[in-house]
Amino acid sequence: MVNETQHTCSASSSSKSDGGSSSGSESSKDSSRCSTPVLDADRHERLREKMRRRQDSGDKWFSLEFFPPRTANAAVNLISRFDRMGAGGPLFIDVTWHPAGDPGSDKETSSMIIANTAVNYCGLETILHMTCCNQTKDDITGHLQKAKRLGLKNIMALRGDPVGEEWEEEVDGFNYAVDLVKHIRNEFDDYFDICVAGYPKGHPEAESYEADLRHLKEKVFAGADFIITQLFFRSETFLKFMKDCQAIGITCPIIPGIFPIQGYHSLRQLVKLSKLEVPQEIKDVIEPIKDNDAAIRNYGVELAVSMCRELLDSGVVHGLHFYTLNREVATTEVLKRLGIWKEDPRRPLPWAVSAHPKRRVEDVRPIFWASRPKSYIYRTQEWDDFPNGRWGNSSSPAFGELKDYYLFYLKSKSPREELLKMWGEELTGEESVFEVFTCYITGEPNKNGHKVTCMPWNDDPLATETNLLKEQLEKVNRRGILTINSQPNINGKPSTDPIVGWGPSGGYVFQKAYLEFFTSSEIVTALLKVLKKYELRVNYHIVNVKGQNITNAPDLQPNAVTWGIFPGREIIQPTVVDPVSFLSWKDEAFALWIEQWAKLYEEESPSRMIIQYIHDNYYLVNLVDNDFPLENCLWQVVDDTFELLN
Amino acid sequence: MVNETQHTCSASSSSKSDGGSSSGSESSKDSSRCSTPVLDADRHERLREKMRRRQDSGDKWFSLEFFPPRTANAAVNLISRFDRMGAGGPLFIDVTWHPAGDPGSDKETSSMIIANTAVNYCGLETILHMTCCNQTKDDITGHLQKAKRLGLKNIMALRGDPVGEEWEEEVDGFNYAVDLVKHIRNEFDDYFDICVAGYPKGHPEAESYEADLRHLKEKVFAGADFIITQLFFRSETFLKFMKDCQAIGITCPIIPGIFPIQGYHSLRQLVKLSKLEVPQEIKDVIEPIKDNDAAIRNYGVELAVSMCRELLDSGVVHGLHFYTLNREVATTEVLKRLGIWKEDPRRPLPWAVSAHPKRRVEDVRPIFWASRPKSYIYRTQEWDDFPNGRWGNSSSPAFGELKDYYLFYLKSKSPREELLKMWGEELTGEESVFEVFTCYITGEPNKNGHKVTCMPWNDDPLATETNLLKEQLEKVNRRGILTINSQPNINGKPSTDPIVGWGPSGGYVFQKAYLEFFTSSEIVTALLKVLKKYELRVNYHIVNVKGQNITNAPDLQPNAVTWGIFPGREIIQPTVVDPVSFLSWKDEAFALWIEQWAKLYEEESPSRMIIQYIHDNYYLVNLVDNDFPLENCLWQVVDDTFELLN
Repeated sequence: MVNETQHTCSASSSSKSDGGSSSGSESSKDSSRCSTPVLDADRHERLREKMRRRQDSGDKWFSLEFFPPRTANAAVNLISRFDRMGAGGPLFIDVTWHPAGDPGSDKETSSMIIANTAVNYCGLETILHMTCCNQTKDDITGHLQKAKRLGLKNIMALRGDPVGEEWEEEVDGFNYAVDLVKHIRNEFDDYFDICVAGYPKGHPEAESYEADLRHLKEKVFAGADFIITQLFFRSETFLKFMKDCQAIGITCPIIPGIFPIQGYHSLRQLVKLSKLEVPQEIKDVIEPIKDNDAAIRNYGVELAVSMCRELLDSGVVHGLHFYTLNREVATTEVLKRLGIWKEDPRRPLPWAVSAHPKRRVEDVRPIFWASRPKSYIYRTQEWDDFPNGRWGNSSSPAFGELKDYYLFYLKSKSPREELLKMWGEELTGEESVFEVFTCYITGEPNKNGHKVTCMPWNDDPLATETNLLKEQLEKVNRRGILTINSQPNINGKPSTDPIVGWGPSGGYVFQKAYLEFFTSSEIVTALLKVLKKYELRVNYHIVNVKGQNITNAPDLQPNAVTWGIFPGREIIQPTVVDPVSFLSWKDEAFALWIEQWAKLYEEESPSRMIIQYIHDNYYLVNLVDNDFPLENCLWQVVDDTFELLN
Repeated sequence: MVNETQHTCSASSSSKSDGGSSSGSESSKDSSRCSTPVLDADRHERLREKMRRRQDSGDKWFSLEFFPPRTANAAVNLISRFDRMGAGGPLFIDVTWHPAGDPGSDKETSSMIIANTAVNYCGLETILHMTCCNQTKDDITGHLQKAKRLGLKNIMALRGDPVGEEWEEEVDGFNYAVDLVKHIRNEFDDYFDICVAGYPKGHPEAESYEADLRHLKEKVFAGADFIITQLFFRSETFLKFMKDCQAIGITCPIIPGIFPIQGYHSLRQLVKLSKLEVPQEIKDVIEPIKDNDAAIRNYGVELAVSMCRELLDSGVVHGLHFYTLNREVATTEVLKRLGIWKEDPRRPLPWAVSAHPKRRVEDVRPIFWASRPKSYIYRTQEWDDFPNGRWGNSSSPAFGELKDYYLFYLKSKSPREELLKMWGEELTGEESVFEVFTCYITGEPNKNGHKVTCMPWNDDPLATETNLLKEQLEKVNRRGILTINSQPNINGKPSTDPIVGWGPSGGYVFQKAYLEFFTSSEIVTALLKVLKKYELRVNYHIVNVKGQNITNAPDLQPNAVTWGIFPGREIIQPTVVDPVSFLSWKDEAFALWIEQWAKLYEEESPSRMIIQYIHDNYYLVNLVDNDFPLENCLWQVVDDTFELLN
């Protein structure tokens, strides 16, 4: 009868049958006591395991290749592109390595830093390319150590292009990708997942197609986990290649590299670099329309979609790798038409998860950074432990100072001129600031006709969930309650709810209503009087830039404001209002007035002085309504406050 | 404005004003990050702090004195008395020390072990008496070290009665209680709270009342935290004593010792020992009724109530200490009439909390031991850490084996003859076992006219909460689903609910429906087929005595089945169904069939073989319905199973 089910706890039954009942239960405890609620199995797996799991489940996947940007501004844009394209659910992205561009440095445009940002700040599984040609072992080891330190777990091992025309093998040097694969396995054991390149038409420098296949087999046998191919123009090319690989004993996953043609010049350049030949039938279509970018892109999308369909229909292809050329439209279009772009409104947790392996148990954060998750990750990057299950358990050090407001991944996407148009070329008083906040909430243009699509505390337009509160938010912002964060109360909605849901299906999610705003000391005085009536229901923290802090939180304990109940699991409580973190957030929230807004204006200018006045005199307030099953009382609190003031 | 409220986070605002903003936030984090949700502030405080807090809040309290029992059976009874009288909410209990009775030994009747049981297994704040007369420093230190190791935190430091008629001071020995107080403070610093005895009429051996007051002052200045007085018969006696103490500079709390007269002989004995004189007006009442115990007790209660009222009305008395003589009725009656017996149906957590300081953060337990909390405490006594917030976080070792089923505090309160009457002098088959389970559920007498008030897995009658499920439970037990644990689903009842509520007020409590039972392999086979229909909704664990284990729990994670949401706090999830602990519980649950039931019968007798058969062949099953907002589906699961069998 025991054998009737698949779910047998073999660990403990086998240790039992060894006869040692005491040691048996101990070892089963050790092995199966899990350290995290595991909302998202992905977070525990290596890339090669994820690949295998997706293959087993028959669930098709895609991945995206990017190259490092040339300028700091381009880096800012690329990171937003990671966020947007990450929403479609790539299994991984990869970042190429350009030896000429100082790829292992700390520059914001280096391959290393872009890959680091993708993993840590965008939460994307990332492969860092690395080439070995013309580099010393020490350099390579240094790069790999740095990559490991930054939380990167996957390397695409490549030879790279030799410098100069006449290339000769170096004795004891890295001459081929296989040398790099061996080096990684020698020096880092099984730490990295390793990918290598395959050439469906054979490497242009190889003696023959067969010789190239043998090289590929060497790379795999040296320790590579999977293969991504060079681009190709016909599905038969790939399917033959795959068959040939299998015939000589290559059994690891082989992922076809897809290049949606996006323009005449980019195609020509790529073909030149890769020494590939474009089939005549493609040339015939493209040449006549070579100056019509849109037409070429449409054709490229058609071509890619039909080739990808053939590959997926073959039954041997489980994932597709896209050469994006750092562009969004064509690849996204192809993916959507193939039906493998999966913009899942459900999230494993209500906030953006980092992909750094150190953080994989992390499942609680203070609510304050809800709109600035990258800043939260930055300020907690030195932590050795992350809160797991409860905030109170965190044995982590304090928050780091946020001094580098201009770190490219924390920077606003909008340039100064645009911000001035949104937030006002010239402010005439506190009321003009109220007006900016109000326009951000309503989505209506300001008096100069510009929409306010971001704020110093929110780099994106209002979240769908916040939209639920739009009407009330508009009303209070107009009167100087300058809201920067809020959530409605939720009493047990399904975890699959498209707006407030998160976590695995079959669960229920809950929230306490939350409201956070800047406001004047006059309003705070009235608010505190009103709050006496709500003493048992509403928790508040009120602080000014100097750190004067007023609260009724019992024993400075964290207050869980978002939680979920799931089948067969402990409770997950991913956001808390933590009184201690609030004081770290306060520093950041006040500094953003100056760093992002006041500094748009000349020193001593009236506009700058208005923002400086608010910074120096306003309070930052947060309110939690603990009675989540009842109607949110926070709007009543604010109404009562205004009434008292009148 | 900041000064308008009492709740100012002075720690961080002061560190801010020091100018060090980075170190400021770090230190405030260190100092205020709390390690537990603090449901019950009591659990964090020392006895002297609790006393001070109760005095500040004007909340009157009481405490109870017991002496160690003479026999093992009396120890079992005394422990049940601790549980019953503990329900009235004493601030502490104390256990006297009888040098002749080997008080520091490991015997189940020793003062040390009784105090240990009160703290660890009954969850009572406990003071252990200790006398020093005629003992070596090493002996005393040994006793104190042992007390500390067992989790005792409070000592009543006494001289004790000298052995022999002619007592002489020993040089360098312990001659007075003050020597013991000094020794405790020297050797254990501030670890223990120390209590000393005060004599409202002066110690009978003291030169004078005034000299005795000076001795008392010495004891207090040597480090005693509070004073409990010898009994007295008139409130004026105590109030004068208190005034005299204060006049010479004794400022610590002084707690009047109350002795409700319960019988003629006990009064005479006590008077003889304490060398006190009974006032003539009391003698006049008692002598004529000296053979009427009930009359004397009634009079004693009247007398105590009126004296206690005078003391409490004086405004200087905040707590009353009762000499119970290990009896319940008189003291409970006095406390109830005074209105300070507080049988609060609300519990800090849904299970009985231990008072061992090591366990004060503990706030999660597996549901399996719900009816055997003392066994759970026993089997986890070696743990260094207790789960705090989440079960998965526990870094504790495995459960200890439960070999000592006859440890007095784990033993059934009922003697063998009574158990046989309840569970059957002679069993005729599995059905007679079903009958016993059914009678336990219904409360109806069995066929021999005896009520079944306990079971091997439940030493008490059915819990109020389980009563909610009575009808369904009866039905399934009749048919061989032998239930030993269950709870209904609860979807957000107030934490003050008299039946299912727990934790501070203003919160909401939740439960997933739970059902645990023994049943035959035939029923398990059908059940597993039925459970396939409920795969996504119901989690199950099914195990037999050999450890064959069938489950659909994802990754063997714990499932939270009771949780509460409270104002300003993280979520508390005090009970879980933990797959790993279930295997430790399984050993205990199966062993109870043999240890408590089968062994009532002769070896090889048919009754014993029936129980042995069930032990060897039945399965232990637990079921959780994850869909707590819907109607409990577990009864439907059982109905479907029976239907399939028919």
